[in-house]
Amino acid sequence: VIGAVDVGGTKVAVGVADAQGRLLAQDRFPTRPERGPDAVIAEIADRLRALGHPFTTVGVGCVGPLDLDEGLILSPPNFPGWDRVPLRRALEARLGLPVVIDNDANAAALAEYKLGAGQGAKILVYATVSTGIGGGILVDGKLVHGVGGGAGEFGHQTLVPDGPRCGCGNHGCLEALASGPAIVAAARKAGFERPDMHAGHVAEAAAAGDPIAGKVWEDAVEVLAIGLGNVITTLAPDRVVIGGGVAQAGDLLLRPLREALARRVRMVPMDRVDVRLAAHGADAGIFGAIAVGLPRA
Amino acid sequence: VIGAVDVGGTKVAVGVADAQGRLLAQDRFPTRPERGPDAVIAEIADRLRALGHPFTTVGVGCVGPLDLDEGLILSPPNFPGWDRVPLRRALEARLGLPVVIDNDANAAALAEYKLGAGQGAKILVYATVSTGIGGGILVDGKLVHGVGGGAGEFGHQTLVPDGPRCGCGNHGCLEALASGPAIVAAARKAGFERPDMHAGHVAEAAAAGDPIAGKVWEDAVEVLAIGLGNVITTLAPDRVVIGGGVAQAGDLLLRPLREALARRVRMVPMDRVDVRLAAHGADAGIFGAIAVGLPRA
Repeated sequence: VIGAVDVGGTKVAVGVADAQGRLLAQDRFPTRPERGPDAVIAEIADRLRALGHPFTTVGVGCVGPLDLDEGLILSPPNFPGWDRVPLRRALEARLGLPVVIDNDANAAALAEYKLGAGQGAKILVYATVSTGIGGGILVDGKLVHGVGGGAGEFGHQTLVPDGPRCGCGNHGCLEALASGPAIVAAARKAGFERPDMHAGHVAEAAAAGDPIAGKVWEDAVEVLAIGLGNVITTLAPDRVVIGGGVAQAGDLLLRPLREALARRVRMVPMDRVDVRLAAHGADAGIFGAIAVGLPRA
Repeated sequence: VIGAVDVGGTKVAVGVADAQGRLLAQDRFPTRPERGPDAVIAEIADRLRALGHPFTTVGVGCVGPLDLDEGLILSPPNFPGWDRVPLRRALEARLGLPVVIDNDANAAALAEYKLGAGQGAKILVYATVSTGIGGGILVDGKLVHGVGGGAGEFGHQTLVPDGPRCGCGNHGCLEALASGPAIVAAARKAGFERPDMHAGHVAEAAAAGDPIAGKVWEDAVEVLAIGLGNVITTLAPDRVVIGGGVAQAGDLLLRPLREALARRVRMVPMDRVDVRLAAHGADAGIFGAIAVGLPRA
C-alpha cells in the first residue's frame, strides 16, 4: 500500500493506493504556502495518516523547481519564503517511511506509463497543456531526468525568436504561444469573449462554427503541432500522451492536432506514433504521486 | 578485431580496428551506387579482406533511410534502383561473420560516446552540422533509435512555419536555415562571395571583421542555438557534441553558440551542459562504423 502526496501551488492532495495503483482513500486541502514549510509538511503527514490505511512507502509529485538528488523544493514562484526545503527528508522523519519525490510533470508521465494511456510504450512523450506546457519523457520505462531534472521542459522551446516574453525569461516559447492562458489571450485579442473564459470555450465555439474562435483555435493547434512535432522529430516516440486542461477539449484537439502533425513531421513515420489523450485528466496529480511511489514494473 | 564499413553517397570507407577502437588499416573507394547493390557489396567485402587483418565482427554506418530491424537500406536519394537492399544479410553471407548496422549519424554519435568527446555522458546529444543537420541521442550509453530509427532527426524541427521548403517536405526546418549550404546561400544573397565557398569562409571573414559575413554568421549561429537549445530544453543532456563540416570552424562556432544557448535556454542549467566539438572530424564515418562494431562498453 502506497501513500501519495500531490503538492500544488493552491492545493495539496493526499491519497492511499493499493499495489495496482487503485485509489483506496483520498483527501485534499489548501496549500497556503505562506504558512511556511513546517506547517504544510505537518498537515501532509497528519492528513495522510488520517486516511486510515497503513502504507509502507510514499510517492510525492511536487511543483518545481526541485533538486531531485537531495529531495529539495528549491524556490517555486508563489511559495514565498520557501528556499531549498528538504521535503523528502522532512516527510521521511515525520512518517518514518521511505519517500520518493519527483516533479509533477514527470510524475504525471510516470502515471500514464504505469497506469494510463502510456502503457507498453518504448519511448513515451507525455505533454501537459494547461496553465503551462511541460511534460515528461520515458525511455524503456525509465524517466529521463537530465541535468537539474530539466528534461521534458519542451514547453520552453523557442518557436518565435522575437515572440512574446515567456515567464522563463526567453522569448517566443511554445508555452507563451499555446498554453491555456495564451489561447484565452489570443481569443480576447481577436474579439472572442466568454465569462470565465478558458481554452475549452474557444474549442467549442470553433466546433460550432464561430469564425473568430475557429481561427484562434486553428492557430493554437498548429503551434502545438509544431512544438510537439519538434519533440517527435527529436525522439521518434511510439507513443505521445496529451493531458492538462487544454486536452479536456478531447477530439476537438486531437483530430486537428494529428492532422497538423502528419503535415509537419516528415522524418518520423507518423503512422507509427500513437497520439492519445491522457487517461488521468483532473486526477493527474494524485495518480502521478501514486506512480512515483509504486515500485518499478 | 573489428571490421568497419562507412557507406556514403559518394564514397565507401573500410577499415579494421583493434578492441580499443584504434584504426589498424583503412581504404576507400567511390560508391558508384549506379553499379547496383551486388557490385558495391562485393567490393566492400573484397576491400575489407584485402586490408590483411583478420576480424571477427563488422560494424557498418550507412546513409539512411534504413530499416534497422531488418538491416535494410530502404531507398536513399542518389542511390538509383536501390530499394530495400538487405545490406546486413548480404555482407554476413559474403564474410561469414556477424554484421551490425546503424545509420551514419547514430554511428557518429556512438563513436563520440565510446571513443571521443562524449565519453562518460549520462545523456549525450550529438549533432552534425554539415550538408544536412542531424544527430544521435544516447541515454545511459544506449542509442535512442525510436520508431523507424527516426530519433535524432532534430535538423527537421520546424523553426519558421512559413520558411523555405526543406528537402524533407516540411517548411522552415533547422536544416533549411543553418546547414552548410544554407549558410553559403545566405552569404551569397547578402553579397558575400568566395571561390568554392563553404561555411568556414563565412566564419573566418566574420572573425576578420567583414560586416556582411559577420551578420550572416551571427544569424546562422543564433538559429543553430535555437534549434540545439530546443533539443537541450527537451532532454537536459549533460553533454552536447557538435561535429560535421560547419563545426570545423571550431571556436568561431563554439564561443558564440554557447553564448546564444545561455540566452535561450532558461529551464535547464546551461552551466551543467558541456558543449564541445566532436573528436572525430573528417573521420566521423569510419570511427562511427568502428563504434557500431565494438561490443557495448
